[in-house]
Amino acid sequence: MSRFSLPPDPVFVTLNASIGFDWRLYPYDVEQSRAHAKMLAATGIITDADLDELLNGLDRVRAELDANEFKFLDDDEDIHMAVERRLTEIVGPVGGKLHTARSRNDQVATDMAMFTRAHALRAIEALQDLQTVIVRVAEAHLDWPMPGYTHLQRAQPVYLSHHLLAYFWMFRRDASRFALVLGGTSELPLGAGALAGVNFPTDRRLVASELGFAGVVPNSIDAVSNRDFVLDYLNAAATCATHLSRLGAEIVLWSSEEFGFCEVRDDWASSSSIMPQKKNPDAAELLRAKAPRIVSHLAGLHGVMHALPLTYNKDMQEDKEHLFDTVDTLELTLAAARGMLESMTFKRERLAAAATDEMLAAVDVADMLVKRGVPFRQSHGIVAGLVRTAVESGRVLSQLTREELAEHSDVLDDDFYAVLSQGTWLESKESEGGTSLARVREQLAHAKAALDQTT
Amino acid sequence: MSRFSLPPDPVFVTLNASIGFDWRLYPYDVEQSRAHAKMLAATGIITDADLDELLNGLDRVRAELDANEFKFLDDDEDIHMAVERRLTEIVGPVGGKLHTARSRNDQVATDMAMFTRAHALRAIEALQDLQTVIVRVAEAHLDWPMPGYTHLQRAQPVYLSHHLLAYFWMFRRDASRFALVLGGTSELPLGAGALAGVNFPTDRRLVASELGFAGVVPNSIDAVSNRDFVLDYLNAAATCATHLSRLGAEIVLWSSEEFGFCEVRDDWASSSSIMPQKKNPDAAELLRAKAPRIVSHLAGLHGVMHALPLTYNKDMQEDKEHLFDTVDTLELTLAAARGMLESMTFKRERLAAAATDEMLAAVDVADMLVKRGVPFRQSHGIVAGLVRTAVESGRVLSQLTREELAEHSDVLDDDFYAVLSQGTWLESKESEGGTSLARVREQLAHAKAALDQTT
Amino acid sequence: MSRFSLPPDPVFVTLNASIGFDWRLYPYDVEQSRAHAKMLAATGIITDADLDELLNGLDRVRAELDANEFKFLDDDEDIHMAVERRLTEIVGPVGGKLHTARSRNDQVATDMAMFTRAHALRAIEALQDLQTVIVRVAEAHLDWPMPGYTHLQRAQPVYLSHHLLAYFWMFRRDASRFALVLGGTSELPLGAGALAGVNFPTDRRLVASELGFAGVVPNSIDAVSNRDFVLDYLNAAATCATHLSRLGAEIVLWSSEEFGFCEVRDDWASSSSIMPQKKNPDAAELLRAKAPRIVSHLAGLHGVMHALPLTYNKDMQEDKEHLFDTVDTLELTLAAARGMLESMTFKRERLAAAATDEMLAAVDVADMLVKRGVPFRQSHGIVAGLVRTAVESGRVLSQLTREELAEHSDVLDDDFYAVLSQGTWLESKESEGGTSLARVREQLAHAKAALDQTT
Amino acid sequence: MSRFSLPPDPVFVTLNASIGFDWRLYPYDVEQSRAHAKMLAATGIITDADLDELLNGLDRVRAELDANEFKFLDDDEDIHMAVERRLTEIVGPVGGKLHTARSRNDQVATDMAMFTRAHALRAIEALQDLQTVIVRVAEAHLDWPMPGYTHLQRAQPVYLSHHLLAYFWMFRRDASRFALVLGGTSELPLGAGALAGVNFPTDRRLVASELGFAGVVPNSIDAVSNRDFVLDYLNAAATCATHLSRLGAEIVLWSSEEFGFCEVRDDWASSSSIMPQKKNPDAAELLRAKAPRIVSHLAGLHGVMHALPLTYNKDMQEDKEHLFDTVDTLELTLAAARGMLESMTFKRERLAAAATDEMLAAVDVADMLVKRGVPFRQSHGIVAGLVRTAVESGRVLSQLTREELAEHSDVLDDDFYAVLSQGTWLESKESEGGTSLARVREQLAHAKAALDQTT
Repeated sequence: MSRFSLPPDPVFVTLNASIGFDWRLYPYDVEQSRAHAKMLAATGIITDADLDELLNGLDRVRAELDANEFKFLDDDEDIHMAVERRLTEIVGPVGGKLHTARSRNDQVATDMAMFTRAHALRAIEALQDLQTVIVRVAEAHLDWPMPGYTHLQRAQPVYLSHHLLAYFWMFRRDASRFALVLGGTSELPLGAGALAGVNFPTDRRLVASELGFAGVVPNSIDAVSNRDFVLDYLNAAATCATHLSRLGAEIVLWSSEEFGFCEVRDDWASSSSIMPQKKNPDAAELLRAKAPRIVSHLAGLHGVMHALPLTYNKDMQEDKEHLFDTVDTLELTLAAARGMLESMTFKRERLAAAATDEMLAAVDVADMLVKRGVPFRQSHGIVAGLVRTAVESGRVLSQLTREELAEHSDVLDDDFYAVLSQGTWLESKESEGGTSLARVREQLAHAKAALDQTT
Repeated sequence: MSRFSLPPDPVFVTLNASIGFDWRLYPYDVEQSRAHAKMLAATGIITDADLDELLNGLDRVRAELDANEFKFLDDDEDIHMAVERRLTEIVGPVGGKLHTARSRNDQVATDMAMFTRAHALRAIEALQDLQTVIVRVAEAHLDWPMPGYTHLQRAQPVYLSHHLLAYFWMFRRDASRFALVLGGTSELPLGAGALAGVNFPTDRRLVASELGFAGVVPNSIDAVSNRDFVLDYLNAAATCATHLSRLGAEIVLWSSEEFGFCEVRDDWASSSSIMPQKKNPDAAELLRAKAPRIVSHLAGLHGVMHALPLTYNKDMQEDKEHLFDTVDTLELTLAAARGMLESMTFKRERLAAAATDEMLAAVDVADMLVKRGVPFRQSHGIVAGLVRTAVESGRVLSQLTREELAEHSDVLDDDFYAVLSQGTWLESKESEGGTSLARVREQLAHAKAALDQTT
Repeated sequence: MSRFSLPPDPVFVTLNASIGFDWRLYPYDVEQSRAHAKMLAATGIITDADLDELLNGLDRVRAELDANEFKFLDDDEDIHMAVERRLTEIVGPVGGKLHTARSRNDQVATDMAMFTRAHALRAIEALQDLQTVIVRVAEAHLDWPMPGYTHLQRAQPVYLSHHLLAYFWMFRRDASRFALVLGGTSELPLGAGALAGVNFPTDRRLVASELGFAGVVPNSIDAVSNRDFVLDYLNAAATCATHLSRLGAEIVLWSSEEFGFCEVRDDWASSSSIMPQKKNPDAAELLRAKAPRIVSHLAGLHGVMHALPLTYNKDMQEDKEHLFDTVDTLELTLAAARGMLESMTFKRERLAAAATDEMLAAVDVADMLVKRGVPFRQSHGIVAGLVRTAVESGRVLSQLTREELAEHSDVLDDDFYAVLSQGTWLESKESEGGTSLARVREQLAHAKAALDQTT
Repeated sequence: MSRFSLPPDPVFVTLNASIGFDWRLYPYDVEQSRAHAKMLAATGIITDADLDELLNGLDRVRAELDANEFKFLDDDEDIHMAVERRLTEIVGPVGGKLHTARSRNDQVATDMAMFTRAHALRAIEALQDLQTVIVRVAEAHLDWPMPGYTHLQRAQPVYLSHHLLAYFWMFRRDASRFALVLGGTSELPLGAGALAGVNFPTDRRLVASELGFAGVVPNSIDAVSNRDFVLDYLNAAATCATHLSRLGAEIVLWSSEEFGFCEVRDDWASSSSIMPQKKNPDAAELLRAKAPRIVSHLAGLHGVMHALPLTYNKDMQEDKEHLFDTVDTLELTLAAARGMLESMTFKRERLAAAATDEMLAAVDVADMLVKRGVPFRQSHGIVAGLVRTAVESGRVLSQLTREELAEHSDVLDDDFYAVLSQGTWLESKESEGGTSLARVREQLAHAKAALDQTT
């Protein structure tokens, strides 16, 4: 019997029901119900015979759900109620014992913690896969010079391997953020009841151990009020997606005719409905485009939790769609980044041609002066003057005459032309973490060791 | 000499200059310059005599800045240029040697990492202070019953101590997020140069050790492109601010005449310009109001980093104002939360009166039936029926007659009245993490141990 | 034939396809195709016989879609391709003529403009329905006193009608924001082709007129690059949702036992899985909870459009899910607000009891002094002193003695007690827009006239 | 006298005070006080002698503020209190009469409405200035071919003028959003008092007329609870900033060596601290970078208003910093966009070379087939096949032999080579709004007429 005298208004039902999206929690819901039932029997709250019936019934519910044969009814407000309803159809009134010493408040918090933890683990694995591809592609293009950019202006040449490895470290940090999610889901909410604890001598640690939690949430109010772990997942995903957006943006840029640094393989490109010649890097554009979506989910859930008095409020039902869409989007884009990256082609000649732009050696000329005792700030000014003279007269630096050099500094001699004639200026970047080959090899070894350690 | 033939447009100067806010970085900028200079000397890139001059000059610059006697000039685009400009005024051309083997790109990343780390530490300390106050206030109100709420409806009674301790655990998780920031700022960016490493045999680990970094960023491109650690701080602050907003919202609510559960002390309240009777909990409202501001800073910086090609882009200058305002806001609100909380008064009678609402015992009646063998779902229905009968006839549960009880269930007997007459129903919440006194004492011990461990 | 030598990667297909959500555009897609075909025939680009076949085919496609009998294929990347594919199956090669002088770029912009306009109109209607209910409920509670709050502290009494009408004006402003969307969708994008216009002498104004657009977008690049109108809808929805969240928050608050000002009808409430007594105002909580979701969609689409070079980029496909979920959420919450509001009960006695709190008359006492020549700031101070004396001695204002009054001011006489004894202090708020009954009646007339004008 | 027995805690003072930012409202605050005082005298609430004193005093306060000679005190919580405090110092107790029939709640709403309206007008003017520059630059580059892009791939050639004019229409729509702000600030809040109206027979319409408002807010509760107009400004600014970010992103891209389409003048560029050759388009990058900042302010204020019960809450003080920073950022970036754009140089040869890429004619070849009766979808396939053959054999389209053409279609003849040899394919885009010169001239006339109309 309900305490209400009216059935719910259809608009209210549509607004209120979560079954349309929270059905995804079913594996976790059934698993926690199995663990809860075992604990109820172990502590004598239900009998072993009850337990057998409940477990058998839950197995059958799970099987129906796995086989997509579960019939959802209009009254199934959420996955928890749907599972219990079907369980009771199967096993009879004993099904009604499952919810002893449990509330939907701690139940849903537990489902969400389990779901979030599972997908944090999956994100860590997907990141490792992507990092592995990056290492492989970097090794395959170890000594390919290209321009490094600041402000999207050519700045100094680097090896393509070095540039790609920058992403390795971004994704490594992302993994550490997902690891924090594992910490944030290591304590079991279940057993908190509605908010105050329960009227039974339950054994929460038994359930925790059964479900792979390291401990139990120490405060029942916090257990049902807390969604920090969802925020933590969303945050890890948001920063990761922002990294992916930078990768996507670079692939879009490099795929343009003007840059011409790379080409995505045909199976990662789209055509145009009207322009037959087009080969569009849609996958890279979508990598780029998904970051604001995930950042919005993060900000959205913060907004939902903002100023909410304790303990559970219905508002918190909004956690699910933000999380589910983020999980789907992130896992898809990580897979796409890997697939696109490992299949794409880089254009050695275009990269090299851009890298030999003589202007990129300006700092090397300045440093040559420094090594002769000119304070850097002064040598910087001298070379800036040379650049201005060259630009204003439409020449490159090496076309300046000795007389012109002399006008700018008396320390400049033929070594000026020697530095410029080296073509590229990479190997002198000998500092740790720099782009010289020895340093990139060192970095690759570091990256591989880091990967091995986490796998 | 500049490579440009025109001085900057005044509108461009206003748009471009960061000195109006990045002056705050000066302690870190001077400190890193000292460490950089020492390394340049240790590796023979500059002489020991140069070093002495640079260190003396930097000390004087620092002293002027500390004493607020530093004169900023219109041409001082940012704090880095201002410090170097003044240094060179003091020590002469040798000042121009300081920027050897360094770029503003790795310099600003290093200043930002140092600033962020320092304030992450400060946040951790402020959180500990706040947690200490929570423990103290919880202990002082250990056995004060109050209603626990779900959906802002009275649900089950809890002790005020238990309710307050829920915040302890939130703030404890916040500290773990700030600890992640420490990890994210443990590698030194400096030495990456503009993006590719530098043309000198520098010793980055020497600088790292001097400045308290555990290691060096392994990729020079990543070193200058990365602002993850700022995002990490903003994220930690955003979740913490959301927790503070829940605390603020509860204090606002509890300070209303209708709830009447607490009163902020006069020194934490505001009056009205027109209504002489008003005592407004402005501090609590502002605790509440600041969360969206910090969440916006987080989303804003994600937006700035979105789709940025590597390496450094001017866009990244936007990291500072988002971070600085977040730091100021967070540190102020943490201090305010502590000050307001430790000085406020709770109203024992109002809390207790609300906690003895008989309806709060409904689940206890249901659980009594469960203990007699009625499946929970069925007992829930029986009690729901009793509630409906009572509500529809304008009575409380204990006014229902034995006959009425019998109509709903034959297991109901005088124990029904006994359960209701207990007045409060807290001590039966004996499960771990529950609100019974023994459990709250256990939780307090756990909380204190956790505090001791981190201090 | 495709220009590609490989079929798309399955991960890419999943990432790239929009058919999973853009099928919703089908009524607009078919309608615009009909109009486009008519124009092609009218300008002689296709024959009348072609037109007949195309229209018949499109009618059949539309009928299949309406009847849910349309079979989507794995290769149907989006609704535009699905419709054209099916059309060609039905009518043969002539179906391939439909895309003459059209690109998916201008096609999707047109579908989106039509969809957005239709739902902006629907929002305006839903707002009018809600405003009508507010007027009705306000009239039914015209002279019910209640406390007005600032800072959630009782401030001055108002009539419930006056309080409810505040929402009327909010929703009226919301309608004006949706009206701006109508302006922003009044120019037809179609005819812009991929981006540059088309190689045919089309008649865009004919299509515009057929589809109800007032004119055509004057720049073909802008036509395919622009999603301002989607942002405009999202913005209108965001502010409207924020208004709804304030309404929801107030209903949650007023439904608490502590306030007790109202009760939602049973068909708009939820029960608890564990606590049989609970009647939770879930609908009101969800009204509150949905605002951050919609605000996030707005910020998310801004993020997608941020820094996108012209013209069309695949990123813009992200506009759809943000819009569709916003439309669904907004239309549902507007309906829920109306349904909940028109069925809820207000509690006259609880409202009145709170409104007669004597403290609410403090400003009226102060104003009495003003009318006797005391400057307001001084009279405010006098009454503040009286309040302090009363509060510190645990009395209400009317319990202060004449001697005590005299200590604070020599202008205070028996009128002090008279003002306080009036019980409520509403009718003196005679200023325009104030809460006196005459003014509220005036306001109601104004509101009704405004409604009549827009219907 | 205060009703409080303790002075405010210093942390609370720092948290609570708004004088640090709301001093900017002073011109509006003084102006409204003058109007309010006049109304008080006109309605007999104060005497004409009082009025004279108040007006003289307010003039002096204003003069001190304008001259930067106003001394703010530690107790000046906000600009309203500071002005009244100083006024009373100047004119004595009569200063205390100014706040008669007014509250800070309606006062600050009025100041904010006046400030917002003034800056909406300024934004409209700045947009007109920018649009004027766009028209001028477009005219100066009327017939300069360049590639139009979709997906950042060359798609079809357009004239630079046509591309630039796309921004004209974006900024025109922005102006319409700021015009909505004018509507949203056309009703005067003042006179609402704290929330309920006032105890005096005021004449709000007199004040409205004096201050340039078209009417008065019809509901006193709404008057003090409403910040829609601030949200409206922030929204208009956010979309405008997003447009500016697209412009900035294009200038950054076009300034790269790879594109080489334009160069910002030296006074709009930055140099590097380490690389002497660099000329960085910092202004364009900052145009790009500011959009997320403004979008965040919008989302932040939505967050503040979320779920706030009526009427005024202290949270609403947060409206100011969001608005002020947005105003400053927007006005600065609009000025920067104009200054940078009108001074930059476009590179005719680089643009033209990119526009003559033969692939850009693919759709024109397809349309040639359409005109011979081949359904477009089929002709698209034929040309896609030609493209594939060319790409796979490393040739351009015009290098395909007649035999190869014949293999793909028997309708292909020498006109294929003729279409390709035209070099650019712009004038055939004859549809309204297309890129043919006649259409661009038409568009320019339309744009100028639109500008004239609004100035």
